[in-house]
Order: sequence, then C-alpha cells, then structure tokens
Amino acid sequence: MFAPKTNPGNFFEDFRLGQVIRHATPRTVTAGFNVLYTALYGARFAVQSSDPFAKAIGYRRAPIDDLLVFHVVFGKTVPDVSLNAVANLGYAGCRFLAPVYPGDTLSAASEIIGLKENANRKTGIVYVRSTGFNQDGARVIEYVRWVMVRKRDEAAPAPGDHVPRLLVALEPGMLGDACQFTEGQGRFGRRLIYGGHVISLARALSFNGLANAFHIAGINGGRHVAPLFAGNTVFAWSEVLNVAELPGRRDVGGLRLRTIATKDRPCADFPYKEGDAYDPAVILDLDYWVLLPR
Amino acid sequence: MFAPKTNPGNFFEDFRLGQVIRHATPRTVTAGFNVLYTALYGARFAVQSSDPFAKAIGYRRAPIDDLLVFHVVFGKTVPDVSLNAVANLGYAGCRFLAPVYPGDTLSAASEIIGLKENANRKTGIVYVRSTGFNQDGARVIEYVRWVMVRKRDEAAPAPGDHVPRLLVALEPGMLGDACQFTEGQGRFGRRLIYGGHVISLARALSFNGLANAFHIAGINGGRHVAPLFAGNTVFAWSEVLNVAELPGRRDVGGLRLRTIATKDRPCADFPYKEGDAYDPAVILDLDYWVLLPR
Amino acid sequence: MFAPKTNPGNFFEDFRLGQVIRHATPRTVTAGFNVLYTALYGARFAVQSSDPFAKAIGYRRAPIDDLLVFHVVFGKTVPDVSLNAVANLGYAGCRFLAPVYPGDTLSAASEIIGLKENANRKTGIVYVRSTGFNQDGARVIEYVRWVMVRKRDEAAPAPGDHVPRLLVALEPGMLGDACQFTEGQGRFGRRLIYGGHVISLARALSFNGLANAFHIAGINGGRHVAPLFAGNTVFAWSEVLNVAELPGRRDVGGLRLRTIATKDRPCADFPYKEGDAYDPAVILDLDYWVLLPR
Repeated sequence: MFAPKTNPGNFFEDFRLGQVIRHATPRTVTAGFNVLYTALYGARFAVQSSDPFAKAIGYRRAPIDDLLVFHVVFGKTVPDVSLNAVANLGYAGCRFLAPVYPGDTLSAASEIIGLKENANRKTGIVYVRSTGFNQDGARVIEYVRWVMVRKRDEAAPAPGDHVPRLLVALEPGMLGDACQFTEGQGRFGRRLIYGGHVISLARALSFNGLANAFHIAGINGGRHVAPLFAGNTVFAWSEVLNVAELPGRRDVGGLRLRTIATKDRPCADFPYKEGDAYDPAVILDLDYWVLLPR
Repeated sequence: MFAPKTNPGNFFEDFRLGQVIRHATPRTVTAGFNVLYTALYGARFAVQSSDPFAKAIGYRRAPIDDLLVFHVVFGKTVPDVSLNAVANLGYAGCRFLAPVYPGDTLSAASEIIGLKENANRKTGIVYVRSTGFNQDGARVIEYVRWVMVRKRDEAAPAPGDHVPRLLVALEPGMLGDACQFTEGQGRFGRRLIYGGHVISLARALSFNGLANAFHIAGINGGRHVAPLFAGNTVFAWSEVLNVAELPGRRDVGGLRLRTIATKDRPCADFPYKEGDAYDPAVILDLDYWVLLPR
Repeated sequence: MFAPKTNPGNFFEDFRLGQVIRHATPRTVTAGFNVLYTALYGARFAVQSSDPFAKAIGYRRAPIDDLLVFHVVFGKTVPDVSLNAVANLGYAGCRFLAPVYPGDTLSAASEIIGLKENANRKTGIVYVRSTGFNQDGARVIEYVRWVMVRKRDEAAPAPGDHVPRLLVALEPGMLGDACQFTEGQGRFGRRLIYGGHVISLARALSFNGLANAFHIAGINGGRHVAPLFAGNTVFAWSEVLNVAELPGRRDVGGLRLRTIATKDRPCADFPYKEGDAYDPAVILDLDYWVLLPR
C-alpha cells in the first residue's frame, strides 16, 4: 500500500487563465509571531513594538509587522504556485490594505492573470495576483507576482498566452514602477537564504534614521540583485525618492524610499550602481512607500 | 561554604517498584509555544495553525501541538528518571487523552512499574508510566517508557525484579505493538540531535499527503534506528498500515501509520528495510494512530 | 538626496552632568518573550514558568523573567549611551522594583550622574543611572552603569569631571560591593557573545540546587572576567555568601549568591581564583541577592 504522498505541485501546463486557487491551511498569527520576528530581524519600529504607542495613533493595539504578513501570505501560495519554480521573477503593486492584529487568522487566494510560454517550451511565466484575507474575509494584502515554472511535459500545449499590463493602482500619487525581483536560485554549494529575510533585515536596519516610518503602504517593486548565503552579514542604506501628501489625510504623509542592502560591505558610502551595473556587494534594490506622521 | 548544588539524579538502586514521582516545575504553555514549535519544525496542520478551523471542528481554539505536549511532559521526567541513563530503550502505549490549549499548565508524574537489573550489575532497566496533567488535574497524555540507568554502586542490591506486561489498552481497535526506541547515545564527536526533534520533523513532513491527519491519537511504538547529527537533512515518508472506524464516532476515523525518517537521503523510493536490516539512511521507524475527518 | 541616515550616537563630549535621556521605542513584552527566553536559556524557575504557581505565591500571573527585563531595558539605552563605547566597565546597585507581566510595556530613561575624561583625552567614563518603567510610569528596574566612551574630537573640552559615590542603597541589609563588569570587546576573529547571554545562562543553570530562588532582588555587581565566543559551552556553580531576613517579611528571605560561569570547563571542583587571579576558564563572577520562600 505504497503511494506517493508528496504534493507534486502544479506545472506550467496545469494553470488556466482566470483560475482562482484558494490556498490551504489558514494561520492564526499571535503575539508570539511578533516576538519571533523581532528576535530574527531586530525590528524596533514603535508601532509594532508597543501597544500603548500603537493605540495612541489609532491602532487597536500593536499590529503584526507588515512584512511578516507578506511572508505568511506568500508562504501559503508556494505549494500551489511555485513548487516547480525555476526563478521568482518579479513583484508589483504590493499593497497592505488593513492592519493585522495578534489573534487574526490569515488565509490566501491567487488568481492566474497571465500565462506566457518561454521559447524553449520547457518553462513558462505564470502571473498571479495573490490576496491575503483575515478571518472576516477582509483583504489585508494584495500583490502581483510573476514566476518561471517548469513544464511537466515539454510537448504539452501552452495553457494560455497573455501578459497582463502591470499598471498597478496604488493610492493616488503612490504609483510605482514595477521593477524585477530575481530570486537567487540553483545549487551554490552553500545554504541559500530566503530572499524575504533580506527584505525584512533591510527594513529593520532602516530604523536608524527612519524610525518614524511606521507602516509600509506598498511595495512598488524591487530586485534581488544577488543571492545571500548563510554566514554573510547584511548592511543597508536608504534614499528618499519622493515625498507625497495623501489625499484627505492630514495626520500622515508618504515617503517613497529606495532601500539598498549589501552583503559583507558597510554602506557608509552608499554603494548602488556603477554605470548600469550594480555594485558587486548589492543584494537587494527595493522601491516602496512608507507612511510617517506629519 | 561550598556544597554540590547540581542534582545528581536517581541511580538504578534508588528506584522502588510502585514509587510515584511528582516531577518539578509545572509549565504554562502559551500561544508562543506553538509559534516557536512551528518555526522549528514547519508544522502546517490546520487544527494547530488556525483558531477558526479548530473551532469549526469542535475545539475551543487551536490546541497545542500533540508532540509539543509530549516533549514538555517528557522533559519534566528527565531530572528524576533518566539523568543517569545510558540509553532510552523504548516507549509504548502513548495516548493523547485531552487537548491542551494555550494558557494551560502542564505538570507530570511517573510511576515505577518495573525494575530489572542487567547481568553485568552495572545498570538496570527502569520501566515508568509517565502522565501529564493540566491545571485542573485532568490527564492529557500517558505513556510507558523503559530506560537503562546506571547504578551508583555495583555492589548495591537490585531494588526489584519485575518486568511489566506491556499490553497497552489504547482505544478499541487501536492496540499497537510495542516496538523499541533506541536513543542514539555516547560520544560521537558531533552534536547529537534530540530524538524528539526527529519525531516532530517527520510529523511535520507528513503534512504533504496527510494534511487532514489533524490529531495523533496514540503512538504504538517506534525505533530511533540511528542517530541524527547537526547538519544532516531529514526526509520522511509514510505507509498506511490500517484504517479503522472508531466506536461511536461518525465524524472521525483512525489511520494507523508507519512514518519512516531518513537522513541525507530523499524518500521518493520509500527506503525502509532490506531483508531484516534497515536501509542505512533510516533514522526513525514510528508506528502511530492519527484521526481524520470522515 | 543622499544623507547619512544611521544614528551616529553620542560621543563623550556630547554628555552633560544631570542630563536625562528618554530612550526611544517602548516595548510591549508578551508571553511569547518568556517562550523565546526559555528556549534560549532553558530557564525552569517555577514562578516564571507557571501561572498557577505564580498566583499561589501572590503574583498576578507568571511574570516576565527578571533578567529579560534587564536585557530589554539595557537594550533601549544602547543607541543613546553606548553606541560609541570602547568597553562596558561596570554595573552597580541593580534593583528589580516591581514585577513585569506579559502585556506590560517597558520604556527606559537614563540620567548622567558622572563624567570623567581619561588621561589620554581620547575617551572618558560616562556614569548613568538607567531606569525601566512600565506603561503606568511605575519603575520596574533601576541600575547604575559606567562605560568608557570615545570622544569625537580629542581636542574637545571634557564635558564634566565628577565621579559619583556608588554607595547604592538596596534593601536594608542587601548592600553589595560594586564590582566591575568588563565587556569583552575588540576584534577577536570569532563571533563574540553578548555578555548578557552569559548572565542569563548562568542564572538558568543555577536552577539545579537553587530551584526555589524565584526572584532576583538585586545585582550587587560582577565582572565579565573573559569573553565568550560562539561554540563555547557554558558551565556554572554558585556559592552562598549570606543569608538575610528581610525587614517585615515573614514569607520570604534573602540569599546573597556568587555565581561563577566558566567556558568549556565543568564546575564539579568549583573553579574560581588561584590567589588573586581568576581560573583561566572563568568568564563571569556575579554577586547578587535572590529571594526564597521561608
């Protein structure tokens, strides 16, 4: 009575345009999640650290860290969307739509919004819009991701041929360009660190100088420029790209930031690009909007 | 004013048949325990992950993971029972009797149910029935364990000579054979991983294909076939040994499983035994009952 | 639009006698903090482990571990006080003034109580009294620390010249000598472990034999005798220095302890000093008062 029990995941030809996948296993996120997140990344933003501080500015209590919400929802989509991925190509229009509090339960769904077979017929690009919900069905996060997925059978016909327009409507004035995340993949002979760790570490490091940037309103896009391995040390610096008033909000304003993370190289001289090429130490180029009190 | 402050633990000749030991230091298990457990083992079973899911099938809220309850209770017994152990020889008839919820407080007691000196007179086997209680005194877990313990003094008379019959009455139809757990022990020059980690990892890996197996009803027995060391990678596969109706239960049924864990060897071809000998990669052979919705 | 965003911290000439610094970012400590603390240090003291046990002796519930309170408050002071420290020189008169419970929010402030430039004019000693508060403004911990801090500019005049008398009034009869903590600093080519880990590990190890020492009333002083590196194994032993009745308390008494921690050397023969010199394995010499039930 032997049977293969491991979920083989979806291959490129298994997806259909317009298909909606409800991902398995909702997750109740408790205060303990914030503790572990803090221990891992050293995050010190006051809103996520302190109940009284969060209440004073209108939250019910200290919310779950924005990027932890992203990681939990992203994780839910992996078994259905990217178990057979060759490379995670890009993100766009990530919006954090409602606070998530300890005790809330997150679930996730994804809609296939684009499919494009590659010329070699071995792989194709899957475009998905993934949404995270709380226990009341309210949307708490939404983002578009595109990912290169293997075909099970090269001879199988392509399941569709549509590349979506990725003009993502964030808040008015918060429209960002959709840059590219390229996940470091493959066999490096060293332990590869999940790209989400880099994003969370860079955000935690940005506390120095941006301590008031209490909420990530959205991620316009970004790139995992190079992979991170166990044992590397991460540094980061940030550049202010834009300052925006938010329609109808007198209490907070928006700041568009570029945060650059490096490995094994301090950032006192702001390493970024030399001409068109990234400095060899750069591992993350992230473009996002944060909210600050006015 | 120097005095030895470290508890020397009990030696074989210190135990008495029928002796009941109330173990020290009750432990309140909070939601944070589930978070850390999830982070360590990657467990994704919906009942333990989601409050709404757990409530929908009759739990008060998401319970503490069964094996985490086992680990906490087992840990309580170590200072009194096995501080001077040479090898942890076997488990039998482990039953999970009531759900444990965040905020509950676990305590443990053990009864000495057998004592058998070894021929070399240097060690003896101690058989204990250990029970975990919640703060209301309700039994939440019970299991029999036998363990080889050093004597302090070879010349001391044996404290008893009784091997209990280990016919353990689980739920009707759930009677298992009492196989042998042999803890990897000794000095290997590498960091030995606690055998309980292997059990928890194997259970977490079984989620792929057995996602609905929401509760471990009992562990019939099993063997730590070989030790696991830091740096090894754990794989696992499961075989369904039996399917059982539960008397009086129309909502759930029982599944008897054998889960095999290996180190540094994928399980696509289900490595187990070659003749009577285990495949050299096998580290755990676990025989247990789970409950599934019908 | 590039600007240095990392907080450069205060240099010696930036401090003023009598200056009070309110440190940033309050922190709500949840039950999850105790879980992570337990996982890191293996603490098993019943009061911090068990809600029913804590209630039975008069606490509202299991409080946050005393040393975790110390670490959180100490951490808050670092960006303002010791970002440019050469060495953390000493602690004195640390008192734990009120229990901290899960859900409480800790904030911290420090008063500059002494400033003394060193003869080389490159550094100076800053003496601070740091206080931790809960969300109601009640003081929960207070301690004096002195730390050697770099000057930004050697030519800058010393900001003061006052060494405070460190006669610290603890509870009557609990007055301790103010020994010296010397943080292992510098570039060792190995990963240096935060000295606070050593204190917490030593306290956790003292459970064997001092399981009833449920609360640290105060730390008289101590020394980080030598640095600890990743991969070292920590051992500890304790000596009872004094037994004291507490005025007006019939339920608990005080025990003054010296706890010695070593690296990579068991403590069965109580390694301490040979003449005036510490045994080369000793890394911590801690002098403190604990409370025990009478």
